[in-house]
Amino acid sequence: MRVAVDALGGDNAPGEVVAGSLAAATKLTDDEFVLVGNGDAIRPRLEDAPANVSLREARGLVGMEEDPAAALRARPDSSVAVAAEMVRAGEAEAFFSAGSTGAAVAAALLKVGRLEGCRRPAIATMLPFDKPVLLLDAGATVSCRPQDLLNFAILGGVFARRYLRLQSDPRIGLVNVGEEPGKGDDLAKEAHGLLAGSGAVHFVGNVEGREIGHGVADVLVTDGFTGNVVLKTAEGVAREILGMVREAVTSSTATRLAASVLRPRLVAVRDRVDPENYGGSFLLGVRGIVVIGHGNSHARGVENALVGLSRAGSGLVEDLVGALAAARRPAAGDAV
Amino acid sequence: MRVAVDALGGDNAPGEVVAGSLAAATKLTDDEFVLVGNGDAIRPRLEDAPANVSLREARGLVGMEEDPAAALRARPDSSVAVAAEMVRAGEAEAFFSAGSTGAAVAAALLKVGRLEGCRRPAIATMLPFDKPVLLLDAGATVSCRPQDLLNFAILGGVFARRYLRLQSDPRIGLVNVGEEPGKGDDLAKEAHGLLAGSGAVHFVGNVEGREIGHGVADVLVTDGFTGNVVLKTAEGVAREILGMVREAVTSSTATRLAASVLRPRLVAVRDRVDPENYGGSFLLGVRGIVVIGHGNSHARGVENALVGLSRAGSGLVEDLVGALAAARRPAAGDAV
Repeated sequence: MRVAVDALGGDNAPGEVVAGSLAAATKLTDDEFVLVGNGDAIRPRLEDAPANVSLREARGLVGMEEDPAAALRARPDSSVAVAAEMVRAGEAEAFFSAGSTGAAVAAALLKVGRLEGCRRPAIATMLPFDKPVLLLDAGATVSCRPQDLLNFAILGGVFARRYLRLQSDPRIGLVNVGEEPGKGDDLAKEAHGLLAGSGAVHFVGNVEGREIGHGVADVLVTDGFTGNVVLKTAEGVAREILGMVREAVTSSTATRLAASVLRPRLVAVRDRVDPENYGGSFLLGVRGIVVIGHGNSHARGVENALVGLSRAGSGLVEDLVGALAAARRPAAGDAV
Repeated sequence: MRVAVDALGGDNAPGEVVAGSLAAATKLTDDEFVLVGNGDAIRPRLEDAPANVSLREARGLVGMEEDPAAALRARPDSSVAVAAEMVRAGEAEAFFSAGSTGAAVAAALLKVGRLEGCRRPAIATMLPFDKPVLLLDAGATVSCRPQDLLNFAILGGVFARRYLRLQSDPRIGLVNVGEEPGKGDDLAKEAHGLLAGSGAVHFVGNVEGREIGHGVADVLVTDGFTGNVVLKTAEGVAREILGMVREAVTSSTATRLAASVLRPRLVAVRDRVDPENYGGSFLLGVRGIVVIGHGNSHARGVENALVGLSRAGSGLVEDLVGALAAARRPAAGDAV
């Protein structure tokens, strides 16, 4: 697979983005990585690069504070625009960016385009829990219709099966305020009906907030507003609790000694819920593979995102197209 | 203040509810507590009760799986119905229930009634973070209008000032997917405009999920769908991370020794985020004080809920009515 990497997006670009890309390229010798950015800044970092890494010139980036669509139109030679254009032109199958999420989503929609039958895309992200669970939408589409959530379930199911290497149909849950089918706002109630009635997904019903990390589903669907708040709350709470534990155990000489014994285990806990384990979220519903890294990604996060992309990616779009089309066809029993 | 306590609601009723009520009554000698439930089950537990505890007969409870409104109509002598009726009749200023949340909300709406100018009530709950923050709505009103969120801000501000003993105007934040005013779905965008334009609250703007526990606001408003999912996600993640830490530090003899040194500090962390510290959420927007306990409340949670009720409660409804009325009056500058 050929992957365009926006080398300028992100708080730690280009250094950490290039370093992570080189590490991934060393492991993934069947894939190619094209670093997109200012040659002057990138070239010196590529002296010892493996042969499957190359450079594509771009000028400047779309900032976090800019209006994404306007910035992309005004500066078609910015790094994220060039990376997306490579996917549109078939020069790359995927692009990665740790820059502005809004710019990556806008570049994907404007240049790569949507999948047929999919009104709006979703950001699919692994939640930082012990039991892996894919949440979508994490913020691409803040206002959703019931059909959008069914589409997210179809897209998320195909993706989770590849990404998590599941042997059976992914279990799809609907984020809701109660377990019973009649719970929730109008969107949740109608989406429940569509999900339960569709033969296209293995729907396991409503999932409450407290169950999200308990492995009751492989994929959780919700609108981009709720999903974004849930994701950020989960990350924020995890960081806060771990900070409280660290502060508590290092606050006196006696406990510092005990803490030094426990440090490797506490670090292991932190690592198990570290967002950089996944390193990137996937924008599903567009005619290419688009991976959005955390803005503060370090090399490890970029590397993990590209490794995940390689695992889930090649042929993903064709599978998504097929699943959406199959879900639109009436089932045999309905064809009277 | 006179408080009616639903002695039959909750997983650990009546034992833990009665024990918590007796503990609270011993501390709060100016308040009176009326335990509402089957005399046969409650009376034997009241042998050493202080003088400010009494019994009111009721028969049976509204179960978690029942339709609340139908059950209340069919069984007006159930414990939560009798407790709510006491508030309606002026025999109590407040009622507490750790039973079905739906039943407590329905009893409050059907019997106690709404405050003027407040279309829908909100559940106000303290989030289990190190920096105290009040979230509303945590699930009473899953479908909200922008004006509802402004009302929640007014109600939450009055309540937080009393409950948290704040010296200045509570800072009100709007849960959203980004900090900028234009972010969010239609509800969030319109609510932002109302909150920013109202002179009735000290609005500090949008608050993202990851900032929720960082003390950037005293009160966070959102619709009951988002609020419920956020609350339960936060509680679930906190429990999960603490469980992972406990498991990690007790998994070998060597670390168990170190863990025994650290145990008091790790317990202190757990206690700082224990939902039983608050023990109950307040239903705001009705003509009485209604406190909803966790379904699995133990005596400590019930006691803490009743202590919080006593601190925040007496005269609360009059203050809420006044604040809603003041917000409806045009400001002096507008009166041209």
